[in-house]
Amino acid sequence: MDKKLKVLGVAGSLRKGSYNKALLRAALEESPEDVELEVFDLEGIPPYNQDLDNDMPAKVKEFKSKIKAADAILIATPEYNYSVPGVLKNAIDWASRPPGDNSWDDKPVAIMSASIGMLAGARAQYHLRQTFVYINMHPVNRPEIMVPFAADKVDANGRVTDEKTRRKIKELLESLASWTRRLKR
Amino acid sequence: MDKKLKVLGVAGSLRKGSYNKALLRAALEESPEDVELEVFDLEGIPPYNQDLDNDMPAKVKEFKSKIKAADAILIATPEYNYSVPGVLKNAIDWASRPPGDNSWDDKPVAIMSASIGMLAGARAQYHLRQTFVYINMHPVNRPEIMVPFAADKVDANGRVTDEKTRRKIKELLESLASWTRRLKR
Amino acid sequence: MDKKLKVLGVAGSLRKGSYNKALLRAALEESPEDVELEVFDLEGIPPYNQDLDNDMPAKVKEFKSKIKAADAILIATPEYNYSVPGVLKNAIDWASRPPGDNSWDDKPVAIMSASIGMLAGARAQYHLRQTFVYINMHPVNRPEIMVPFAADKVDANGRVTDEKTRRKIKELLESLASWTRRLKR
Amino acid sequence: MDKKLKVLGVAGSLRKGSYNKALLRAALEESPEDVELEVFDLEGIPPYNQDLDNDMPAKVKEFKSKIKAADAILIATPEYNYSVPGVLKNAIDWASRPPGDNSWDDKPVAIMSASIGMLAGARAQYHLRQTFVYINMHPVNRPEIMVPFAADKVDANGRVTDEKTRRKIKELLESLASWTRRLKR
Repeated sequence: MDKKLKVLGVAGSLRKGSYNKALLRAALEESPEDVELEVFDLEGIPPYNQDLDNDMPAKVKEFKSKIKAADAILIATPEYNYSVPGVLKNAIDWASRPPGDNSWDDKPVAIMSASIGMLAGARAQYHLRQTFVYINMHPVNRPEIMVPFAADKVDANGRVTDEKTRRKIKELLESLASWTRRLKR
Repeated sequence: MDKKLKVLGVAGSLRKGSYNKALLRAALEESPEDVELEVFDLEGIPPYNQDLDNDMPAKVKEFKSKIKAADAILIATPEYNYSVPGVLKNAIDWASRPPGDNSWDDKPVAIMSASIGMLAGARAQYHLRQTFVYINMHPVNRPEIMVPFAADKVDANGRVTDEKTRRKIKELLESLASWTRRLKR
Repeated sequence: MDKKLKVLGVAGSLRKGSYNKALLRAALEESPEDVELEVFDLEGIPPYNQDLDNDMPAKVKEFKSKIKAADAILIATPEYNYSVPGVLKNAIDWASRPPGDNSWDDKPVAIMSASIGMLAGARAQYHLRQTFVYINMHPVNRPEIMVPFAADKVDANGRVTDEKTRRKIKELLESLASWTRRLKR
Repeated sequence: MDKKLKVLGVAGSLRKGSYNKALLRAALEESPEDVELEVFDLEGIPPYNQDLDNDMPAKVKEFKSKIKAADAILIATPEYNYSVPGVLKNAIDWASRPPGDNSWDDKPVAIMSASIGMLAGARAQYHLRQTFVYINMHPVNRPEIMVPFAADKVDANGRVTDEKTRRKIKELLESLASWTRRLKR
């Protein structure tokens, strides 16, 4: 029998009440049977400095080993200024280093995003996809989850209450699991 | 007589020996008469957290007032993983906040980039341009400065020794100055 | 007194009942006093072939002189397959040629888009903006007009009936006019 | 024994002496044993018009069946105005239609590009990759083939004479074949 797929979830925002952290919590609850999702918090990862490539902070080392141990990655991110939040991109930059030790290499990945507005992170998602080319990740094409008007879909405790959104998240996890198994050699 | 244009220069890398910091030093030396260039170092700007929008770190406040006082912005940035370095995007994110106090608003801007490879930052530049739409900056179209094989053009002291590159930088500053004056109302 | 600004409108779809053609018709009706808008139809422009650079089809020559005579450009376009429709990009390619005779050079431009779905052309707009860098156009940053669910906002005669959309179009034309006057040397 | 993989090659330029057509001819010569490459010429595909979705031109129908019969796609394209040539995008648009009959669905794909300048099509390649998300194609991440200064690498008969370029093309075909087999269910 196949063993469970290990998926590492990362939110692109440090904000306590982040809607994207809420998406990841919903993902934990909606995970299919064959998926084991763990969430990693980017809090504590400092701004990247290439001079530290051979002396990385402990938190970055921990991030890198979590990524390597995962079969696939799930990113939930807001869009800041029509692109990827600096905070998330900075964490991606760290984990792609040093040369020859890109932790993201050959990993399947899925993206979701939530925002209070209407476009809901689309522009961040396409910039992320360009980064995936270089770090050699394989993104799921469908479904694309962009949750607009997130303030109406997450309650005061940070729980995603909108059933349609929860179903979509489940669908994305199933798609990621199926894509990951398809890519297994 | 017109007074000098104040230009704020920002490098997208924290590395001490950064080629992009070297481009900014060359820009200081090659500035046209009517331009007064000042360089701001992003070292010390922490990862952005929206929960701190009303309690920003002192370094961020200083950055925001430098930007506001400038007539135009000059960015020199490497490309990390086919996009904008997290470090630079993070600084842009801070300075665009809180809502209603976007320091970048209506500023003319020019970009240059250097890298050890051939594509030399192009992909970072186009992602930056998309961010400029939202934060309402007005980028110079030409010249586009992408300095490939930078290791051959900067000496051990971090001085840009390649004359063609220095001329290009001067040309970009002239273009930025002329664009800035054209946009003055 | 200033004379009127000549704006050339172009739709990115050949479809008779195109929602984006409807946006342009609404723009004709909502034009501010100081704007004279003319619409050019791309029907009849063949696929671009560089071998014909010095023997361009009559329709392309006509397009090029209309562009040159305009003070500014207004594009209304759908999004096809997450980018600019081939039909529109093809017309842009023709008018940028031959070398040394780029008709778009230094023109201010505004974009709007309508679609039956929710994202409403955003992805086409950002790809267009990248093209503007090379052909040296100056796009308006705001407002961004992306009309979702267009089927509910255009009647059987192809008239935009949604008042909010009409106001937005008027606002975009005012913004384009003001940007164009600001860029006049 | 596995049967050969059928790959359909498409050039993004109609020009007779196109460097990108030359890349495809080199690909025909450098094809690995297990790949059968056929090249399709876009000449004769008219501008897309949605009104013809149910009455497509014969040439488009032929294109669609060639795509469907292929195991993978190989695109060789120039960059026009910092994006995909209208001619190529137009052909992609046709073949993605009508709704429910997207010929590109689930196909692996590789891209290469040649140009007389230095950036050599990079910007077209990333825009293409965004289109692939919607039409659900799976692009090879590596190698990325961008052939700069193509005029020095193709002789008067349109043959790619540069050995390094030929090796790269072979490498891309091998990568596409391996990616295609990996994705086979």
